Amino acid sequence: MASPAPAPPSPAAAAHSAAPRIGLAGLATMGQNLALNIAEKGFPISVYNRSPAKVDSTLSRAQAEGGLPVLGHRDPRGFVLSLARPRTVGDAIVDGGGNEWYQNTERRIQEAAARGILYLGMGVSGGEEGARNGPSLMPGGHVQAYDNIRDILQKAAAQTEDGACVTFVGPGGAGNFVKMVHNGIEYGDMQLIAEAYDVLRRVGGLSNSEIADVFAEWNKGELESFLVEITADIFTVADPLDGSGGALVDKILDKTGMKGTGKWTVQQAAELAVAAPTIAASLDGRYLSGLKDERVAAAGVLEEEGMPAGLLEKVSVDKKLLVDRVRQALYASKICSYAQGMNLIRAKSVEKGWNLNLAELARIWKGGCIIRARFLDRIKRAYDRNPELANLIVDREFAKEMVQRQNVWRWVVARAVEAGISTPGMSASLSYFDTYRCSRLPANLIQAQRDLFGAHTFERIDRPGSFHTEWTKLARRSNGAAI
Amino acid sequence: MASPAPAPPSPAAAAHSAAPRIGLAGLATMGQNLALNIAEKGFPISVYNRSPAKVDSTLSRAQAEGGLPVLGHRDPRGFVLSLARPRTVGDAIVDGGGNEWYQNTERRIQEAAARGILYLGMGVSGGEEGARNGPSLMPGGHVQAYDNIRDILQKAAAQTEDGACVTFVGPGGAGNFVKMVHNGIEYGDMQLIAEAYDVLRRVGGLSNSEIADVFAEWNKGELESFLVEITADIFTVADPLDGSGGALVDKILDKTGMKGTGKWTVQQAAELAVAAPTIAASLDGRYLSGLKDERVAAAGVLEEEGMPAGLLEKVSVDKKLLVDRVRQALYASKICSYAQGMNLIRAKSVEKGWNLNLAELARIWKGGCIIRARFLDRIKRAYDRNPELANLIVDREFAKEMVQRQNVWRWVVARAVEAGISTPGMSASLSYFDTYRCSRLPANLIQAQRDLFGAHTFERIDRPGSFHTEWTKLARRSNGAAI
Repeated sequence: MASPAPAPPSPAAAAHSAAPRIGLAGLATMGQNLALNIAEKGFPISVYNRSPAKVDSTLSRAQAEGGLPVLGHRDPRGFVLSLARPRTVGDAIVDGGGNEWYQNTERRIQEAAARGILYLGMGVSGGEEGARNGPSLMPGGHVQAYDNIRDILQKAAAQTEDGACVTFVGPGGAGNFVKMVHNGIEYGDMQLIAEAYDVLRRVGGLSNSEIADVFAEWNKGELESFLVEITADIFTVADPLDGSGGALVDKILDKTGMKGTGKWTVQQAAELAVAAPTIAASLDGRYLSGLKDERVAAAGVLEEEGMPAGLLEKVSVDKKLLVDRVRQALYASKICSYAQGMNLIRAKSVEKGWNLNLAELARIWKGGCIIRARFLDRIKRAYDRNPELANLIVDREFAKEMVQRQNVWRWVVARAVEAGISTPGMSASLSYFDTYRCSRLPANLIQAQRDLFGAHTFERIDRPGSFHTEWTKLARRSNGAAI
Repeated sequence: MASPAPAPPSPAAAAHSAAPRIGLAGLATMGQNLALNIAEKGFPISVYNRSPAKVDSTLSRAQAEGGLPVLGHRDPRGFVLSLARPRTVGDAIVDGGGNEWYQNTERRIQEAAARGILYLGMGVSGGEEGARNGPSLMPGGHVQAYDNIRDILQKAAAQTEDGACVTFVGPGGAGNFVKMVHNGIEYGDMQLIAEAYDVLRRVGGLSNSEIADVFAEWNKGELESFLVEITADIFTVADPLDGSGGALVDKILDKTGMKGTGKWTVQQAAELAVAAPTIAASLDGRYLSGLKDERVAAAGVLEEEGMPAGLLEKVSVDKKLLVDRVRQALYASKICSYAQGMNLIRAKSVEKGWNLNLAELARIWKGGCIIRARFLDRIKRAYDRNPELANLIVDREFAKEMVQRQNVWRWVVARAVEAGISTPGMSASLSYFDTYRCSRLPANLIQAQRDLFGAHTFERIDRPGSFHTEWTKLARRSNGAAI
């Protein structure tokens, strides 16, 4: 809960200058870290938590970090009363829970407004580390509430050469929606990286040490990003429970958890008629990973029916060449995934009249958040060049890159297909690319089928209007002879 | 609206035997056809429509067809009062609208129950032709309502060697849910057939006439189905607006419409944590088909950046061999799509406690509906053999077929990938197959990433419990040297 700084400060406000302008309730790890982050930036902050132990641990950490200005409260009333007065512009609630369903925020905005309270639903990305040292913040709701605490958020957010990783995203639940899609894109990135790892390991036979080096190297180029960086790190971590020095990653069960934002992203894409197959493939990847026992059983049944275990085809390729090709396949697949995410945001913005600025969203993702990447600057510039860009793929710079990479991208996917390695994310991206660049799809047949059995009518390529045909009556079946 | 037949008939009921036991309100094409179908089977039927013109046309058709026992009504009160009494077991409303959202039915069941009225939400598939001559009926809700009109529905439904294409699906909105998934599977079938057409046309250079012959031939084998049959027909239909005899299908704009059930299926799959990538790809295919102008523009931009128009790689293959391989790819892809749909139904059945019988559902889809196919008998038998079958792919018969076909399936997808032909449905099915049969996915990396940035913990392959590691602290980054 934040109460605003009067600007310019009135004498009355000055008299209360010691009272915090902002309070934070909910002191799990993320909350604690965010509170310490804000305090460290010079903003005194009141904190409260239902269970008082976490208030204590927050205060201890504030002490340990050199006496940060954190004021602990064990009852909500005292917490609220501790905040600075007079509240000249309006009290505000900021929900910085991170992953809230956007419609919940829209409901709360109305409930808060009925009580004269401003409300922000703020997406927060960056994990524990980001919360402490600078997250990416995606606040949406009442713009006045944002203006009141803009200075605090700008200091607390991650800093880039392009400014702080925070902006007023838009009205209503826009901040939460954008954070949701951010997470969907994150799912896609993680799936694509995992597929790259699988191809390097199974096709190229790279060791964990070599894979670490590959990702470290990739992190110096066009793929530079937090997720690639931590992937390099992960492959260097030895298993602490195994003295032989083997890598921990090999001991991790291949089952992935999830928290719902990827699911929402896929459902919203379907709702808004936006194709997001790479993100959907990453969600399916998580679902199928969870069926570990079924997968092991399926491998057994199929092997009994004659399916070879292991690679179905050996790929003879120089290791270095393979690494280079997988890098390009990963990059091209990633462009398609981001194109899907950005188009989903735009579709929602149009539906809700949010008027979201895609370039600005790419900018605030450049630092602090899980998908932070060099690449986002290029996306920002693409939307700066053309805010109405229909698809990232057709931005001239990205188009050039796609054309340069598409051949080796096809090579990687085709080899994986032949070898029996599943690359659902890369395949989905490539299908997306090939569908989107296809001026003549076989959808004419589907529309003919729909007209035949449901009289759904069709359009023609050579004249306007809507047409229906009595297909079955006109079909020439005799002797199987066709026209 | 149906009022039940007392069974055994009481003297009072016998006295009213001329009054219809069933009425049908809503006389668009499907409604008219269903009413005539029921009347033809010997059940007098009352009909009503808000606009009286459709009542008239229904009565005219009933006359024209030899005086079928259809009684027209222009006011709802008279319509209801016309139905047989006494209503010894209970009045019932049957919503046979076909594509209702299952939760709407669940709400109406409660509202109806509050008034002492029984309710059925009934999915109806088969299009206009099926409604007239025998659809597949998927009624769910009050079982008593079903029992009351079972004899009527069994006569009206399509007939197969395995009985009438109707069964009591389950309680609540089960009938509508099953119809929704039926439609999702239908989307998948249509997409896969369209991809097969595209590969035959673009890789093999087959003419429309040859494609008609191919589908007609396929319809004699394992792919025998309504959709394959009508596809063969479609390619034989000449363009009525073009005297030169060219095929109409070539003049149809490659934009496909949709009515919402495919979208719901994809959203429900995400909700229930069931991977349904083939069905999702078919929905995306429809969405992307709608972006005709964008696609044409994208082709232009990419061509300017050096992307070749047309096929990227020529595939040298005997036409007959290509046809045979595409057939196998289509069949294997289809098995995966049905596996997804059936698993979605089962997941919902478990969630809602519906106790649905998958074998019985496959049975009632064998006739009448859009996805009717020889293949469904095999699915029925697979679930008869093992009602708990985790996935169609691991049924011994299907497993054997998948193993037999997987090599050429890979060949078709890899060639399409290299040639630049988008086959999102076949690719999604193949990824699904390769993921599901993979006992060790690269999901271990994803879970390591999640633990690194979000402390989400991981399981190990070698001991029970939940683990967390301080990855970044333990990573050895110096000199890029890995363990």
